[in-house]
Amino acid sequence: MTTERTEPGVDGRGTVAAVRPRTAGRYEPLGLGEVRIDGGFWADRQRLNRDAIIPHCDEWLERAGWVENFRAAVAGTLPAARKGRLFTDSDVYKYVEALAWETGREPAPSSDARIGELTTLFRSVLEPDGYLNTFYGRDGQPERYSDLAWGHELYCYGHLIQAAVAHARTSGPDDDLVALGVAVADHVCEVFGPDGDQGICGHPEIETALVELYRVTGERRYLDQARVFVDRRGHDTLGDTMYGGASYYQDRRPIRELDAFEGHAVRALYLAAGAVDVAVETGDDALLDAVRRQYDRTLARRTYLHGGMGSHHHGETYGADFELPADRAYAETCAAVASVMLAWRLLLATGDERYGDVIERALFNVVATCPADDGRGFHYVNTLHRRAPSVVPDAENPSLFRTGGMRSPWFTTSCCPTNVARLLASLGGYLATVDDGGVQLHQYAAGTVSAALPDGAAVRLSVTTRYPEDGVVAVRVEAADRPFELSLRVPGWASGATLAARGGAADAVEPGRVTITVAAGDEVVLTLPMAPRVTVADPRVDAVRGCVAIERGPVVYCAESVDQPDVDLDLIAVGPDPVERDGIIELAGTTVPAPDGDDAEPRAVTLRLTPYHQWGNRGVSTMRVWLPAG
Amino acid sequence: MTTERTEPGVDGRGTVAAVRPRTAGRYEPLGLGEVRIDGGFWADRQRLNRDAIIPHCDEWLERAGWVENFRAAVAGTLPAARKGRLFTDSDVYKYVEALAWETGREPAPSSDARIGELTTLFRSVLEPDGYLNTFYGRDGQPERYSDLAWGHELYCYGHLIQAAVAHARTSGPDDDLVALGVAVADHVCEVFGPDGDQGICGHPEIETALVELYRVTGERRYLDQARVFVDRRGHDTLGDTMYGGASYYQDRRPIRELDAFEGHAVRALYLAAGAVDVAVETGDDALLDAVRRQYDRTLARRTYLHGGMGSHHHGETYGADFELPADRAYAETCAAVASVMLAWRLLLATGDERYGDVIERALFNVVATCPADDGRGFHYVNTLHRRAPSVVPDAENPSLFRTGGMRSPWFTTSCCPTNVARLLASLGGYLATVDDGGVQLHQYAAGTVSAALPDGAAVRLSVTTRYPEDGVVAVRVEAADRPFELSLRVPGWASGATLAARGGAADAVEPGRVTITVAAGDEVVLTLPMAPRVTVADPRVDAVRGCVAIERGPVVYCAESVDQPDVDLDLIAVGPDPVERDGIIELAGTTVPAPDGDDAEPRAVTLRLTPYHQWGNRGVSTMRVWLPAG
Repeated sequence: MTTERTEPGVDGRGTVAAVRPRTAGRYEPLGLGEVRIDGGFWADRQRLNRDAIIPHCDEWLERAGWVENFRAAVAGTLPAARKGRLFTDSDVYKYVEALAWETGREPAPSSDARIGELTTLFRSVLEPDGYLNTFYGRDGQPERYSDLAWGHELYCYGHLIQAAVAHARTSGPDDDLVALGVAVADHVCEVFGPDGDQGICGHPEIETALVELYRVTGERRYLDQARVFVDRRGHDTLGDTMYGGASYYQDRRPIRELDAFEGHAVRALYLAAGAVDVAVETGDDALLDAVRRQYDRTLARRTYLHGGMGSHHHGETYGADFELPADRAYAETCAAVASVMLAWRLLLATGDERYGDVIERALFNVVATCPADDGRGFHYVNTLHRRAPSVVPDAENPSLFRTGGMRSPWFTTSCCPTNVARLLASLGGYLATVDDGGVQLHQYAAGTVSAALPDGAAVRLSVTTRYPEDGVVAVRVEAADRPFELSLRVPGWASGATLAARGGAADAVEPGRVTITVAAGDEVVLTLPMAPRVTVADPRVDAVRGCVAIERGPVVYCAESVDQPDVDLDLIAVGPDPVERDGIIELAGTTVPAPDGDDAEPRAVTLRLTPYHQWGNRGVSTMRVWLPAG
Repeated sequence: MTTERTEPGVDGRGTVAAVRPRTAGRYEPLGLGEVRIDGGFWADRQRLNRDAIIPHCDEWLERAGWVENFRAAVAGTLPAARKGRLFTDSDVYKYVEALAWETGREPAPSSDARIGELTTLFRSVLEPDGYLNTFYGRDGQPERYSDLAWGHELYCYGHLIQAAVAHARTSGPDDDLVALGVAVADHVCEVFGPDGDQGICGHPEIETALVELYRVTGERRYLDQARVFVDRRGHDTLGDTMYGGASYYQDRRPIRELDAFEGHAVRALYLAAGAVDVAVETGDDALLDAVRRQYDRTLARRTYLHGGMGSHHHGETYGADFELPADRAYAETCAAVASVMLAWRLLLATGDERYGDVIERALFNVVATCPADDGRGFHYVNTLHRRAPSVVPDAENPSLFRTGGMRSPWFTTSCCPTNVARLLASLGGYLATVDDGGVQLHQYAAGTVSAALPDGAAVRLSVTTRYPEDGVVAVRVEAADRPFELSLRVPGWASGATLAARGGAADAVEPGRVTITVAAGDEVVLTLPMAPRVTVADPRVDAVRGCVAIERGPVVYCAESVDQPDVDLDLIAVGPDPVERDGIIELAGTTVPAPDGDDAEPRAVTLRLTPYHQWGNRGVSTMRVWLPAG
C-alpha cells in the first residue's frame, strides 16, 4: 500500500500541481511520498489539518446540507430539498481532494472509506451523458448551462477533476473517482469542444483541471479543451456585472493581451494557472510570458505585504495599481491559495526563485493565518488592520457571511476552509524539485526528501531546521547514487545569508539561489538572517503612507490590542528599532493625542508585536500590521 | 396661479422638508415662493436642472421602461413586460417630486401636464385597498409584502408620498396626487398599524414621508404610524445580509441606543430624518438627542472632507470610525442628499448653525459634483481619488452599474439623478428661516427672501453676492413692517470673517451665527475669508496620513490630471502654500521618483487645482483631493 502510494500514477510521482515530468518545465516536481515534513511550523499545521480542519469541513458540509444535496438528487427530492448556494458541490469536491492528498501523505483507512462513499454518491448523480450538478437540470431547476456567466457548472467540474487527479496521484489511476473525473471531462469536451457550445464558465478552474487530468491520463483532448477555454476567453461574451463589467470574469480582453490581473482575484489566478499549464504543455512561450508579465506586475503593484491579493470587498476584485488599503484589505484566503498554485507553476516552468519567495510569503502570512489555533474557524478575508473590535463567531453563532473579517466556522460561500485543507495536505509537494543536475529546495521545513533524479540516481536528504523560529537550515545528504547539485533558495529578504558546506567556513550568499555540488555524507548549512526588519511601502500606496511594517524572516508581524491594553493602536507613532525578545518583537514609540480627546501629553509606549498569522486567536481585538511612524 | 403657488397648503408656506410651523422646531422654514435664487452658482444649477437634468430623467425613465411598467400594469402584461429592478417605481415618483418642486419654483404648464398624466397612470395601478407597486402581487410576481427586508414596497410608497407632499406644498392640497398619497398612506396604516403586520421596510423612507404628509394634511395617524415604524426597528427582525448583518438595515439595535450611524448610509440617514420628524412633532427630546448625538459622531468620524458619507462600496455602508479611504470613497450622491435632509431637520429643530455648515459642504462638494456640466451624466459614487483613467460613459455606452466612479447617464439602480433633481428644484427652501425674532440666512446665494414673520410682519430682503466666487455677501432690507433680527451663519471654516452694518466699520465675527437688529433700508455686509486653506486630516484617518487637502471657502479643490499632463499625481510631494490665481489654485511641489522607475531626480512642479465639483467634465482623467505633503 505504501509503495503504491509513493509511486502511483501515470506520472509516477504523486506530484501536486505538476508540470508533466520531462516536458517543458524547468524543474520536475516531486510526489507526496518523496518529500516528508516531520517537524516544526508546517508539521504542526499538517497535523491540525488532519486532526481538526478536515474533520471540521466534513462536519459542516453535512451540517450545511451540501453533501445531502447529492443524496437528495439520488432520492429525487431536488430542487425542494436543495441547500446552499449554486456552487456548493465544489466544496464537497475540494474536501475530497483534501482527503485524497491527506491519505496519500499519511494513510488512513477511514479517509479511504469516505472517499469511496462520496465517490459512489457522486457517481449516482452522474447523468448518462456525463453531466453532474445538484443545482441544475431537474424539473423546477434552471436548465443546464443556461447561465454560464454565473452558473459555476464548469467550475464545479474542475474541482471534481482536481479531486480525481489528487486521488490518481496518491492512490493510483485505476479508481472510481478518476473514472468519474474522466466522465465529466469527456462530457465537457463533447459539449464545449471547438465545434460545440462556444461558451466559457464565469469562474475559471476547469482549465487547469483539464490539463492536470491530461497529465494523469495522457489524454490529449483534455489539454486541447483547456487551450480552447483559455483562448475563447476575453471577448466580452459573459455580459456585464455589478462588480465591474467583463473584467470581473477576465472576459474583457484575452489573457495574452493584459498587463496585470484584474477583476475577481481568485478567478484571475485560477485562469492564469490554467494558462501556464496550457503554455507549458504546448510549448506556447508567448502565453507563458504573457502570464508571467501580468503576475510580476500584479506582485509589484497589486499585492499586499502578506502576499494576499484582492483590494476590494465589492466583487472580491483587484484594485488599481497601488490601491492597497490596509483596513479594507480583502485578500481572500483562496486568492492566496491560488497565488501559491500559480507561483508554483511559474517556478517549475522558469526556475525563477522569486516565485519561491512568493509562495513562502503567502504560506506563512495568509494560508497559515486562515485557520484558528483549534482548526475550527477560518479567515475568509485577511485584513491588515482591524479598527473596531468584533465578536468572534463560533459554532453556535457563526457569521456565515464572509466579510466580517474574523474567523468563522463556515460561510454561505465556504470556499476557503476546504481550499486550505487541500493545500496543507499537499504541502510537501511544494518544497523540492529535481532536474538533470540534482535537487532544488524551495521551502524549508524539517523533514526528508527521497527522490530519484531524472537519470534514475537515487538521493536522500534530511533537512534539520527550526525555521522560521530561527534561520539555520542544515541539509544532510544521507545517501546519493552519485554526486549532484544541491540548490537552495535564498529568499529575497535574506541579505546577509551565508552558506557553510562540509563543516567549512560560512560564505556570503546572495538572494536568489545558491548551488553546490554534494555527495553522500555531505552537510551544508544555510543561515538566514532573522533580525526584525522595518519595511516601508512604495510611496504610491497611499493607504500606508507614513507607516512601517515589521517583518522577521518570512513572517509579517502585527500589533494586536490584546497585547497592549492601554494603547489605542490608531493613536501611536512608532520608532525605527524593533527588538526581538523571547519570540516577541518589541517596538518603542509614543502615543498621539486624539484631536477630540483630552489634552494628555504623549507618553512613551512599547508595543509588543506577534506574528500576523497568530492574530485573532485570543478573543475580541483590534490589530494593525502597518504602524504609523513618528 | 402664482398666488396659489406661494401660499398653497395647509402649512401655508410651500416648505421643503419642513417641521410644522409653530410646533416644536426652533426655526420655521420658508416656502419656494418666499425664497428665490436669481443668480450665481446655484441659479446656474437650478437652470441646468430645469433645462437638462429633469428632462434627462424623464427621457431615461421612459427609455429604461420604468414608466412603462405602470402602463404594463394597466395593460395586464406584468410580470412579463416588467423592466428594471424591484424598486424602480420609486425613481418615477422622485422624478414627479422634482417636477412638483420645479413647477412651484418656476411655473411650467408642460410640467403640470406631465404630473397630471403620471398621477392618472399611478392611480390606474392603485388597487382598491390602496396597494400600489408594479413588481408585486400579480400572477407570476412575488406576493405583496413577502420580502419586507429587501422588497422596497414601503420605500416606494414613501417617495410617492413625498411627491404628493411636494405637490401639495407648491400647488395646493386639493389634488389627485395628494389624494393618491393619502390613499397609500391610509393603506400603510391599515396594514402595518400597531395591531397589524409587525413588519418594517428594509429601506427607511416611509417614516419621514408619513410625518410630512401629516404636516400637509393634519392627519395624526400618519405621525403615529411613523413613530411605530421608528420604534419597531432595531430588533433584528429583518434577518442577516451579505452586507454585514442587521446593521445594514439599521435593525441591529434601536435608533435610540446607537452611538453612530451604521450600515447602509442612505438607509441610516433617511431613518434618522424620519426619527427627527417624529421627535419634533411629538416632543420626544430623548429621540432627538439620540439622533443628534449619532449624527455628530458620524460627522466627526465617518464623513469625508466633501461631506460625503459611506466608506464601503460593498453594501454602500458606513465604515468604522476614521475608516475613510480616499480612493475607495463611496460617498453615494444620495447619501449626501439624505445628509442635507437630516442636517436641515436638525438645524430647524435646534438652531445649531453647524448643521448649516454641513449642508453647505455637502451641497457644494457632492450635490454640485454629481451632475455633469451638460446635466446628462451623474456621479453615483463620489470618490476623492481616481487612480486609473477611465472611459467616460455616455448615452451610447452608459455604464449602468454604479461603481465605476465616473458620471453615467443612468444606472440599473438610478436613485441619484432624480434625487439631485428634487433637491436642486427645492433648494430655495434650504436658504432661510424665520422665528419670532426675525429672519435667519443659512446659505448664501444671490436672490430675495420675502417672508412673513410669525406675528404677520412682512419683510423683504435682497441678497447680493458672487459667493463662493468671492466672500462678500450683502443683505439689504428692502422692506419690513417692523425692525427685526437678522441672523447670518458664519461658517465654521470662516475664521476672520467680518460684518459691516449700515455702512459702518467691519467688525470681526466668530464662526457660528451673527445677529443684528435691522429695519427697512438697512444693508449689512458679511465678508467671509476666501484665501485657500490647507487642511490636514485627523491622525486616525490612515488613508490620508501625510497628505493635505486644499479648500477655499466652502469648496474642496482637487488636482485633475488634465491640468498637469506631465505629472503623475501619485508621485508628488506638495508644499504648504497654495496661491489663488485667476480662479485656479496653484500649489508648488516636487515629483517623487518611482521606486521601480528610472532614477530621475525630483523636479519642481506647480499643480493647478480646480474645484472638486468640476472634476471629470473634461474626458478621461485621474484626480486626487488629498495630496501627499513633502
